[in-house]
Amino acid sequence: MEEFTRDSFTLPGESGYEDLTLKMAKKWGADVIRDSDGTQLSDEIIHSGYGIYSTLCLIRSDNTWAKQNTDKLQQNFLMSVPVIAEGDQVTISPLNGYFKEQFAIDKKTDPKEFWQVFDRTTQKEVDLSNWDFDASTELVTIKNAKKYHQYTVNFLAIRLWEEISMYNHITNQWGDKEHLMAVEPRYPETQAHILDWLENWCIQHPATTVVRFTSMFYNFAWFWSDEKNCRDIFSDWGSYDFTVNPIALREFEKQKGYKITSEDFINNGKYNQTQNAPSAKYREWMDFINEFVVSFGKKCVDLVHRYGKKAYVFYDDSWIGVEPYGKRFPEFGFDGLIKCVFSGFEARLCAGANGVKTKELRLHPYLFPTGLSGEPTFAPGGNPKLDAQKFWQNVRRALLRKPVDRIGLGGYLHLVEPFPDFCDYIEKVTDEFRLLKSFHQSGAPYVIPGKVAILTAWGALRSWTCSGHLHEHPEVDLINVLESLSGLPFEVEFLSFEDIKTNGISKDIKVIINAGILNSAWSGGDAWKDEQIIEILTEFVANGGGFLGIHEPSACDFSSQFFQLAPILGVDKDLGTKKCLGKYQYSVQPNHFITAENSELNLPVCEGIFVLGKNVNVLAEKNKTPILTEHQFGKGRSIYLSGYRYGIENTRLLMRAILYAGQQEEAVRYYICSNPMTECAYYPAAEIIVIINNSGDLQKTSVQTMDGKTIQAVLEPYDIEIISPFIQNTKS
Amino acid sequence: MEEFTRDSFTLPGESGYEDLTLKMAKKWGADVIRDSDGTQLSDEIIHSGYGIYSTLCLIRSDNTWAKQNTDKLQQNFLMSVPVIAEGDQVTISPLNGYFKEQFAIDKKTDPKEFWQVFDRTTQKEVDLSNWDFDASTELVTIKNAKKYHQYTVNFLAIRLWEEISMYNHITNQWGDKEHLMAVEPRYPETQAHILDWLENWCIQHPATTVVRFTSMFYNFAWFWSDEKNCRDIFSDWGSYDFTVNPIALREFEKQKGYKITSEDFINNGKYNQTQNAPSAKYREWMDFINEFVVSFGKKCVDLVHRYGKKAYVFYDDSWIGVEPYGKRFPEFGFDGLIKCVFSGFEARLCAGANGVKTKELRLHPYLFPTGLSGEPTFAPGGNPKLDAQKFWQNVRRALLRKPVDRIGLGGYLHLVEPFPDFCDYIEKVTDEFRLLKSFHQSGAPYVIPGKVAILTAWGALRSWTCSGHLHEHPEVDLINVLESLSGLPFEVEFLSFEDIKTNGISKDIKVIINAGILNSAWSGGDAWKDEQIIEILTEFVANGGGFLGIHEPSACDFSSQFFQLAPILGVDKDLGTKKCLGKYQYSVQPNHFITAENSELNLPVCEGIFVLGKNVNVLAEKNKTPILTEHQFGKGRSIYLSGYRYGIENTRLLMRAILYAGQQEEAVRYYICSNPMTECAYYPAAEIIVIINNSGDLQKTSVQTMDGKTIQAVLEPYDIEIISPFIQNTKS
Repeated sequence: MEEFTRDSFTLPGESGYEDLTLKMAKKWGADVIRDSDGTQLSDEIIHSGYGIYSTLCLIRSDNTWAKQNTDKLQQNFLMSVPVIAEGDQVTISPLNGYFKEQFAIDKKTDPKEFWQVFDRTTQKEVDLSNWDFDASTELVTIKNAKKYHQYTVNFLAIRLWEEISMYNHITNQWGDKEHLMAVEPRYPETQAHILDWLENWCIQHPATTVVRFTSMFYNFAWFWSDEKNCRDIFSDWGSYDFTVNPIALREFEKQKGYKITSEDFINNGKYNQTQNAPSAKYREWMDFINEFVVSFGKKCVDLVHRYGKKAYVFYDDSWIGVEPYGKRFPEFGFDGLIKCVFSGFEARLCAGANGVKTKELRLHPYLFPTGLSGEPTFAPGGNPKLDAQKFWQNVRRALLRKPVDRIGLGGYLHLVEPFPDFCDYIEKVTDEFRLLKSFHQSGAPYVIPGKVAILTAWGALRSWTCSGHLHEHPEVDLINVLESLSGLPFEVEFLSFEDIKTNGISKDIKVIINAGILNSAWSGGDAWKDEQIIEILTEFVANGGGFLGIHEPSACDFSSQFFQLAPILGVDKDLGTKKCLGKYQYSVQPNHFITAENSELNLPVCEGIFVLGKNVNVLAEKNKTPILTEHQFGKGRSIYLSGYRYGIENTRLLMRAILYAGQQEEAVRYYICSNPMTECAYYPAAEIIVIINNSGDLQKTSVQTMDGKTIQAVLEPYDIEIISPFIQNTKS
Repeated sequence: MEEFTRDSFTLPGESGYEDLTLKMAKKWGADVIRDSDGTQLSDEIIHSGYGIYSTLCLIRSDNTWAKQNTDKLQQNFLMSVPVIAEGDQVTISPLNGYFKEQFAIDKKTDPKEFWQVFDRTTQKEVDLSNWDFDASTELVTIKNAKKYHQYTVNFLAIRLWEEISMYNHITNQWGDKEHLMAVEPRYPETQAHILDWLENWCIQHPATTVVRFTSMFYNFAWFWSDEKNCRDIFSDWGSYDFTVNPIALREFEKQKGYKITSEDFINNGKYNQTQNAPSAKYREWMDFINEFVVSFGKKCVDLVHRYGKKAYVFYDDSWIGVEPYGKRFPEFGFDGLIKCVFSGFEARLCAGANGVKTKELRLHPYLFPTGLSGEPTFAPGGNPKLDAQKFWQNVRRALLRKPVDRIGLGGYLHLVEPFPDFCDYIEKVTDEFRLLKSFHQSGAPYVIPGKVAILTAWGALRSWTCSGHLHEHPEVDLINVLESLSGLPFEVEFLSFEDIKTNGISKDIKVIINAGILNSAWSGGDAWKDEQIIEILTEFVANGGGFLGIHEPSACDFSSQFFQLAPILGVDKDLGTKKCLGKYQYSVQPNHFITAENSELNLPVCEGIFVLGKNVNVLAEKNKTPILTEHQFGKGRSIYLSGYRYGIENTRLLMRAILYAGQQEEAVRYYICSNPMTECAYYPAAEIIVIINNSGDLQKTSVQTMDGKTIQAVLEPYDIEIISPFIQNTKS
């Protein structure tokens, strides 16, 4: 076996397919074999000399214990479907509309301690004395109601089915296979049992070299409906809704000296989606939960370490409270962090985390018959090689900029057998990956001097993510920006409004990007009413900084402007309330550095944008509305883009906009491919330029070095070219 | 002369073209000859036996007196262009950017009495002690400013040029012709002078039979800029901005016991555009002004009457404070009301006013070389006949429903000479008009039983208008709805939120329409936070009423819904803050009463619309967003339309939507043309059905009567057919 590469690749093994497992391990150069949800590794595989990953999800790992302790299941707040009063009494069935296999009403806790009833017509809470819950009928009756008002009940639910188990069970039609439950680790008995169980598991699995936690204790929020045509009631990869339970609520009050209420979570039925600017109270709750997850999580990690195994954590599923970009993350003592990736920004999300040695990407497609949206992958009609090419094309450009340590696959290995082209392609991917990793080992690639900062309500805590995959909310501008940035030669920093208030804007930041819609966390919401924020950013641009605003930057319907930075941007948005105010009649400037490589711009229009006067340069318009403008303010430059969608051409436009905003136009000359379909990275220490073809077509391109050389290259579809400017062209 | 018709038509005469004047008077059957702005009537015309209209604009009629009394010119508040502080002191030139021939700074009144300075970054007023105005430099200096904050000055301006005079002067390049000034009638001296002047005028013009006031004292707001590419700073046909001046402000405070401030008018630089939901304070001001205009206006009318002349008022230009739909309008004692019209809703606006005997329409095109948007009319490249056909087609369908007494033209008569086809067409129009008028005289046309109510923040005060012409704000849904309704067989009522709170909803209202965008007067703004409004409307629909919501009906970002009537409508709008909440996956119902005649719907999409559940019937979608839905609520029906634009096909859709909402589907069978390109009106008393062709093509159509007859007709382009169901088809 020694003659083969055995490095940096994790293979999903499968019992009953031992020969295939070992064959593919050899072909792909695996050094580690893992199990997957629903698969087991046989002894033959376990003892084949590979490292062994075992996946563990502690909160659903002992269902027998869970069934015996249904008073210690995880909980959350839900808002009932609104009901209109038809008289002075109204009856509400709180669970109506929810998926009864997922949720039950918490009848153990006194409803009057945590539940709240609201008149949603007036947005006033109904006095506790005016409603009652009957546990036998499961109905809330409200008296002294106002006829024709709409009422809702915020209630505590118990969760009967752990969501990932539920999703896999229903998607794969597992029939009468047991429903796994999620236990609440806040209870001391649960903690004791988890630690016992984990210790016992470690003893019984001596061959396991790495315990991969999936993930810690709390899944992202995922509320299901009993209505087939509206399965998701709420779904957010970053939400803390599933961390709520009576003892946590009481403990929070004790610790902070004030109460957090059901309505702080329900939030008018909007819940606390990560996409929205968070309240200060909700952020306090997140911190409170993070403290607990780290504290108890560390005990689990320590235990695993005591048995000589490494502990990795999966950056998905039950990752809530783990917060790899949080200040406490290093305290866990994890050895590795694993992220499943479709996109470049997700690779950067994994690569950028601190406090963990090994970073690993779980590539798509998973070895499942269908993808996340139900489309065929390893099934008739699927083309897993093409899928893999596209995902790898996304991820590879990010890995050019920032390395991770390992890659791997997940799922059912036997599904690859009918797809030999896929198997060959993964072999190529693993080779490419190891090569890229080796260049990083000699030193970081060249970046354009000065940082690009992304300013949001979350700041660094939500670095390189807007919560969830790009295909889930492709209309979110910032996620598209991040995808473009993931492969561009810029150093990127994530700043919150609190950060700039506390620390100002550091001198090495050249350009600040604010991108999003009104009240989104990405635009910032009410932070823009804060005069200090306006002062800091105005000063930054006045003194020569660059500001790039996208869609509704600095938006807040406050005072005399909608974009609170309108005077800097040179544009504002009319919500229709300034219909009768004249708008400056601009003309479009056809030739500009920013648009030099884009003949037509494919950007969404933001209705109502108008320019403030003749000093604003409109570079492009659509439907008579400006979609790209630039404005000199003081010594700095401000750029407005009406929206942003990831694409090869738009990535080039974004790069040029950033360079222009940062007054670094000359940087476009060096180590930037002449053909936008291709990108490159220059590794000064390795004296290597890597060029990639991001398209499915043959591409010719050239790259200019700082010492005046011009390198020419021709690349096959999706291919890579490794060039040393000092030697001849070298094919990888 | 006696052998010719002389009835109901007002002809613009022109000195130097006496023969033409008398020839056209005969051809078009004029009974009255008028002068126009810039034209005179010669003695020959005046004594030719016709009635004589003379146009008078009292506030600009004696410019010599105005020049001697520049301390009594009209005024208004303006907001300076925002300036960013670059230190702790900031200097603002208030008039910067404004058209200096229109505005000057009021240096006579103490700035500290009425002016306000705002920090628009914090939206806080700057203390009076922190700013000063230097009358010699015309600069405001603010001390203790905050660096990088944005400051504005609300200041009192004097107007140097009456706006209609300014517009005509500049448009027609009148060169060094004198600039007319508008005097302020609040000053007792001004009132005395106006009455003197008017009396003198009456004495000197014995041949004048009708004095046509243009209009009373205050023009609609129209602020010009000194920037050619942004001529209009603010322009609103319904705004009261030009009614502001020190004595009115002081008088208001004395009368009401509280102060109205500059910021109540400036309103964050949005001013008080009629399109926005008005504040209570602004409505009080309007009422205060209306009281004055009626009181002094009545003195002018009485004087005219004393000289045996009639007094008509023009429902345009300086009509502010006149309010033909206000409660005081009959007190003026006007004999006639004249409205210039492009559209059907404008004809209804004139036809529906109370307290005046004679209603007259001034038809377009005006006899000017160019139209309002600068396009040629009576000039090379123009086609005034086609223009007249199109305008008459708009107006005629409204006149089928509701009569006026007279029509007429305005402008320079000699311009018609090169356009004999236009002259022939106007002859046909005058004949059609007299015929339609005669049918109304025998009794009102048939309407579908039950009223349609338009619910807005203005209610009846802004009946049949959204402020200005359709072409000025074609994107306003309600103006398009009104244009459709102007020719449909419904009785229409205009209700304000106050109306339904005070009086409830009367039993004869079948359907309520609420159409507009967030915070518009037409949707309603904060009125939707009022629980009483929600209760009344919910009860109305629950008990069998129909509700038709268009674009953002009942919109207010308050509590748990955006559309406050979402439970009734069955749809709501996600502003992006509910991105992570699942949306019901509907399917489109292809066959429905409402869409039966529209194969494809041409409606604007409202982004973010989602349906609340399976009981909502989606009748059409665009870009995967519902654009037409219906929902049963209690005994009533609710319909949602994503937007509305006037057109022949959409008018039919709107009619069917109203019939469906009102549960009157069977009404579509009677006295409705089978061909949507044609419309009809049935006059039961005259036993006449009038069918009109609204298109430029030949149309076949049929109409079913209630007693089972089916009438067939074939109409030439834009033609009209008069049919008695009891006799044979009779061509008009």
